[in-house]
Amino acid sequence: MNGALRGFDRLYGLELVSFSDTEVRAQVTVRDELKQPAGLVHGGVYASVAESIASLATALAVLENGDMAMGMANSTSFLRPVTEGVVHAHATRLHRGRTTWVWDVRFSDDRDRTCAVTRMTIAVRPRPDGQPARLP
Amino acid sequence: MNGALRGFDRLYGLELVSFSDTEVRAQVTVRDELKQPAGLVHGGVYASVAESIASLATALAVLENGDMAMGMANSTSFLRPVTEGVVHAHATRLHRGRTTWVWDVRFSDDRDRTCAVTRMTIAVRPRPDGQPARLP
Amino acid sequence: MNGALRGFDRLYGLELVSFSDTEVRAQVTVRDELKQPAGLVHGGVYASVAESIASLATALAVLENGDMAMGMANSTSFLRPVTEGVVHAHATRLHRGRTTWVWDVRFSDDRDRTCAVTRMTIAVRPRPDGQPARLP
Amino acid sequence: MNGALRGFDRLYGLELVSFSDTEVRAQVTVRDELKQPAGLVHGGVYASVAESIASLATALAVLENGDMAMGMANSTSFLRPVTEGVVHAHATRLHRGRTTWVWDVRFSDDRDRTCAVTRMTIAVRPRPDGQPARLP
Repeated sequence: MNGALRGFDRLYGLELVSFSDTEVRAQVTVRDELKQPAGLVHGGVYASVAESIASLATALAVLENGDMAMGMANSTSFLRPVTEGVVHAHATRLHRGRTTWVWDVRFSDDRDRTCAVTRMTIAVRPRPDGQPARLP
Repeated sequence: MNGALRGFDRLYGLELVSFSDTEVRAQVTVRDELKQPAGLVHGGVYASVAESIASLATALAVLENGDMAMGMANSTSFLRPVTEGVVHAHATRLHRGRTTWVWDVRFSDDRDRTCAVTRMTIAVRPRPDGQPARLP
Repeated sequence: MNGALRGFDRLYGLELVSFSDTEVRAQVTVRDELKQPAGLVHGGVYASVAESIASLATALAVLENGDMAMGMANSTSFLRPVTEGVVHAHATRLHRGRTTWVWDVRFSDDRDRTCAVTRMTIAVRPRPDGQPARLP
Repeated sequence: MNGALRGFDRLYGLELVSFSDTEVRAQVTVRDELKQPAGLVHGGVYASVAESIASLATALAVLENGDMAMGMANSTSFLRPVTEGVVHAHATRLHRGRTTWVWDVRFSDDRDRTCAVTRMTIAVRPRPDGQPARLP
């Protein structure tokens, strides 16, 4: 599953753990390249993971209708810094509409403390070519 | 100025252009490593840039009081995809409070079309050691 | 223009000042009925004004195409309390897409200090009946 | 419990159902005065309820330390319109920090369908007088 990841997801190191159209688990292993100047995991990493897993789960679900999915709004709150170990992400779907899906993503550290939360809105639109997509 | 960037900012390629405590300009040159599966610049890149430039500008302004700055909330809306060229970011300060600063960041493409916008809230807190910080 | 307001807008006292498809000005006169327990204007009042003026401006612009507009996301940050006088709202359009419009709303007090800001996303959808709407 | 509500909460008709420092249930009975021009419950009503119940629960918990609570950010997504019956709100605490508490609020209709969701950030600050507050 992770062999298919490329581009930015590969750059920062997204690892998918499990996957459905209502729930996704993923993780990122902390390394210095993911930190901001004070030594904490950069806030953009959380936002990136939320964007990727919510978009991917939505995209896979809607492509059989000839639709595509893309991030529309990403609202992330940072609650507790992470400096080492693994950042765990758990996305749950809040809403499945015709034109938007909404997901909540909770990020936790290795002690299962909530470190950040994202509300992610994904737009669902007809694919320009109207064809079912190849899997990413 | 950019030689000092490290960690995640260096990984995705933040380039600072200009800098004050009320306004920051920065940019990222698009490359395949910054894209999501459909070939667009990944939403997490915009969120990361907003986080970095708002945090950095706040941090530099408050460190002389012995305070530190860290991202508290990042709310990004994606308006128009970018696939090539340069993503330009322009942050302007909306609010300077004792415990939070709030910034707006506008992202544009090479034709100066608005592509994403971020509202960024930065927490300002006393440094644990109470000492003025070294510059990052 | 304000004689047409009804429902919730009339209840809390929205007053439209000026109006176009890119910019709206409105205000609310502070009274005890708009306050929360500590005597400050209730945060819901700002959110309500933002919702109304962004929705209304979008709705009026799209109805000639047989479309309707409805609030999709309202993200409001509270920066400085207001306790008396008038709350002034100034909405400016950030984005006009086919399916969403995005507005920024700045709230200020009688001394023109920024008191709150809202990012408002409005969904644009075909009207069920496909007919141009009557003006509200 | 509801006899103590006043100001804006009384104007739009907040009804508290149950209450702790980790969870709040409340409701609003739909009436024409709470609607926007198309006949749906106004988005500002949801935002107002979220603001009130998260602020109130936080305020009651922190006042024994001589602290006060006030809304800092309110991010509401509208998922399904409500036109009649009762709007039910259920707030759950996500985070209890020294300076901010974060709550999720889910709104549902009489058929328990999710109609809106709010992420609410509440600032906790020392009371100017340093005294424990009277109950609101």
